[in-house]
Amino acid sequence: MNAAAGKLIGVGTGPGDPELLTLKAVRALSEAHVIAHFAKRGSNGNARATVSAYLRPEVIELPLIYPVTTEIDRNHGDYKAAIGCFYTHAAGLVGSHLTAGRTVAVLSEGDPLFYGSYMHLHVRLASSFRTEVIPGVTAMSGCWSEAGTPIVQGDDVLAVVPGTLSEFELTRRLADSDAAVIMKVGRNMPRIRRALAASGRLDRAIYVERGTMPETVSMPVSDKPDDDAPYFSIILVPGWTGRP
Amino acid sequence: MNAAAGKLIGVGTGPGDPELLTLKAVRALSEAHVIAHFAKRGSNGNARATVSAYLRPEVIELPLIYPVTTEIDRNHGDYKAAIGCFYTHAAGLVGSHLTAGRTVAVLSEGDPLFYGSYMHLHVRLASSFRTEVIPGVTAMSGCWSEAGTPIVQGDDVLAVVPGTLSEFELTRRLADSDAAVIMKVGRNMPRIRRALAASGRLDRAIYVERGTMPETVSMPVSDKPDDDAPYFSIILVPGWTGRP
Repeated sequence: MNAAAGKLIGVGTGPGDPELLTLKAVRALSEAHVIAHFAKRGSNGNARATVSAYLRPEVIELPLIYPVTTEIDRNHGDYKAAIGCFYTHAAGLVGSHLTAGRTVAVLSEGDPLFYGSYMHLHVRLASSFRTEVIPGVTAMSGCWSEAGTPIVQGDDVLAVVPGTLSEFELTRRLADSDAAVIMKVGRNMPRIRRALAASGRLDRAIYVERGTMPETVSMPVSDKPDDDAPYFSIILVPGWTGRP
Repeated sequence: MNAAAGKLIGVGTGPGDPELLTLKAVRALSEAHVIAHFAKRGSNGNARATVSAYLRPEVIELPLIYPVTTEIDRNHGDYKAAIGCFYTHAAGLVGSHLTAGRTVAVLSEGDPLFYGSYMHLHVRLASSFRTEVIPGVTAMSGCWSEAGTPIVQGDDVLAVVPGTLSEFELTRRLADSDAAVIMKVGRNMPRIRRALAASGRLDRAIYVERGTMPETVSMPVSDKPDDDAPYFSIILVPGWTGRP
């Protein structure tokens, strides 16, 4: 490793409320020479918005813009090749700053190593540069806190599952766990609703949209009149049925 | 609800490093009249240690001391009765301060509603008093960040399981998930090790002790020469086998 090189820092920015940044994240933002963030073209993304009050005027901003891939199936080899190529290119951009001695903070919504894009830079750069990962409050913690819903206690088993699973798989995993968090709800809502009903979990399922943001919405799934849901909404199935 | 009453705040204090407190947690500590924390007799507990720099001299401290129950089986009715009685008593103590108009912050290691004792006060008091839950960085996030181990990406399924499960159940759940976090390792280590081997997960399992604390230890399970593990150590089984 090059001792004169800068450090790569994955910074968890939490679920959206700027007050849910950690003291360590704020310090990293104040010390970094470069602040990088992943974003779709035309949007700065939530992590960038969360930290905007902490960006110093002299900081170098490095947006890492995802290639347009919506027309390619995510399971197709072409998608994996395109996105892998993009991450390697992004790691090259970040690596140039590190080699020049600059500390680079990479913003990551929630927690960097929990479904975050930061990990793709980490695995490409950690063998060559010093790294630090600053954990953050996850979106799911933000959601169950906002809803005031205890999610697990004692010896509960929790399953975190993507809403993209098949109805059969969703049903099986819901029925097999004390508690569950369903991520990536979006247009999967009708299938998720059927799986909740089939697994006997519909009555205790809670829908949360934009947890910890000012425009947050939270309600029992059985009270939700439609299947409209943004991609980043979450469904909580609390465990804790044997509470003392 | 009594508008003159104080507010109950569940404060997640994160995995142990005081810098992993959120800005919101620090503000709550500076505004609360009473700071309560759960502890075993003779110990102040980790959450109290994490926030010690933020306790104002005039604050009222309210330790909530668990009854001595180690001689009773946790699944026995007597244990549930004793611990239920304790939580009701603790809620009464906290409720007295709330009724007197004092805001009470209840410290909670990690995240308050994720395996935390705070939830037992919340369910007993939330119908009578204003409440707020401030999410925190979980111990497991602290551990995978410390180890620099991406835990889940894309459509990975994550299982969070207690090490207290039977060897059969552990093996089945490990084999059935892309990624897993095994909590409460402690004396369950020999059984966990066998379940990791039987499920084909031993090679990628990582043992983490005291994540984010100065004395943290992290190593592949297969490199760990003994089965000694503190109760709050964690084993990570990273998913993300199809990385681009």
